[in-house]
Amino acid sequence: MLAYGVNVLKELDKKRIKKVMTSRREIIDYCKANKIKFEAVDNHTLNKLSDNNHQGVIIDIYDYEYYTLNDVSGDFVVILDHLEDPHNFGAIIRTCAAAGITSIIIPKDRSVKVTDVVIKTSVGTINYVKIIMVSNIADAIKKLKKQGYFIYSADMHGKNYRSIDYSGKRALVIGNEGKGISNIVKENSDYLVTIPIDSKVESLNASVAAGILIYAMVDKNE
Amino acid sequence: MLAYGVNVLKELDKKRIKKVMTSRREIIDYCKANKIKFEAVDNHTLNKLSDNNHQGVIIDIYDYEYYTLNDVSGDFVVILDHLEDPHNFGAIIRTCAAAGITSIIIPKDRSVKVTDVVIKTSVGTINYVKIIMVSNIADAIKKLKKQGYFIYSADMHGKNYRSIDYSGKRALVIGNEGKGISNIVKENSDYLVTIPIDSKVESLNASVAAGILIYAMVDKNE
Repeated sequence: MLAYGVNVLKELDKKRIKKVMTSRREIIDYCKANKIKFEAVDNHTLNKLSDNNHQGVIIDIYDYEYYTLNDVSGDFVVILDHLEDPHNFGAIIRTCAAAGITSIIIPKDRSVKVTDVVIKTSVGTINYVKIIMVSNIADAIKKLKKQGYFIYSADMHGKNYRSIDYSGKRALVIGNEGKGISNIVKENSDYLVTIPIDSKVESLNASVAAGILIYAMVDKNE
Repeated sequence: MLAYGVNVLKELDKKRIKKVMTSRREIIDYCKANKIKFEAVDNHTLNKLSDNNHQGVIIDIYDYEYYTLNDVSGDFVVILDHLEDPHNFGAIIRTCAAAGITSIIIPKDRSVKVTDVVIKTSVGTINYVKIIMVSNIADAIKKLKKQGYFIYSADMHGKNYRSIDYSGKRALVIGNEGKGISNIVKENSDYLVTIPIDSKVESLNASVAAGILIYAMVDKNE
């Protein structure tokens, strides 16, 4: 898998890097100093490898190794119920890392995966969050409930998110960009939480909604 | 200027549409029913016009007519201090529309403008928000202050955003994705407001940060 750009290179866990291809002198120096395998190439070669905005730096990285439900950590978990857009996924990873959340659960099928766009949009913060892949979101939710987690699902027809006390162990479910939360997940939720929006507007962007809810639900005593 | 897609077509103010070019029968029917000028073309023609994901619908629209500072309305105004990314701009417009904010101020130079990507990312909500273009952000802020607005600028080194009382007329300033708020704007702000983030993480995505702050600052009695 390929990733791109100086910031991504610097944020990436060194162990995840197979090789850096670069046309830039200072990146070669950076690789030498950090014992990263590199190849000096010209921009023409880089452009052939990718039409992304690579800033003279293309990074060949090992495929993401997903975590499992046994790896869940922390009092606050985020679950993505068949999210589709890699930009939303990357931005949500970034928000989770900023809020100190260390576990994000995604389903195996019909879901965005960890791709180069996700890594780039997360601006390297994917190193601080475990992406946990499960075969069934509803089963994962049932297991989390047994471990004492309360399940809050973002939905247009729930309780105003400001009126809820989020103390205790909690999981926030963000649904698909078009379809929202699936019925089976709704049925297994403890609360449906709603961000009030103007009646003329259909919905918020999924990563913006996730940001608003995550910061409303995070421990205020940090 | 061109815009794309079924949802954008349906959300757009009809007066802004010059002509629709489409390869889809039901869109032709929609145009007829809504008295929109259209041209039936094949997908090949559409693909030549745009490599965007047009869904068989390309809309030729009149260029955006920016509003002026005299058009400011509402008790809560958002100011974008040299934002660059059209996806962020579109998502912020969408959040403002959702929160009932009707005025967004942008500077004339070195700023994202209303482009097709912005319109698409706003999912048509740009119809509900006035985009006000000013030649100088600092001057605009000074004028807003004279009108009784308090100026809150998002910055890494301010007061925790949760500890502030946002009553009264208020304006939120969101800075450039890389450089943040400019010094002249900081000097003219009443408060610098900070979203606490983990020390390992550099920043939040600009549209996510805007969403968190807008919903913290919006009138809670809606």
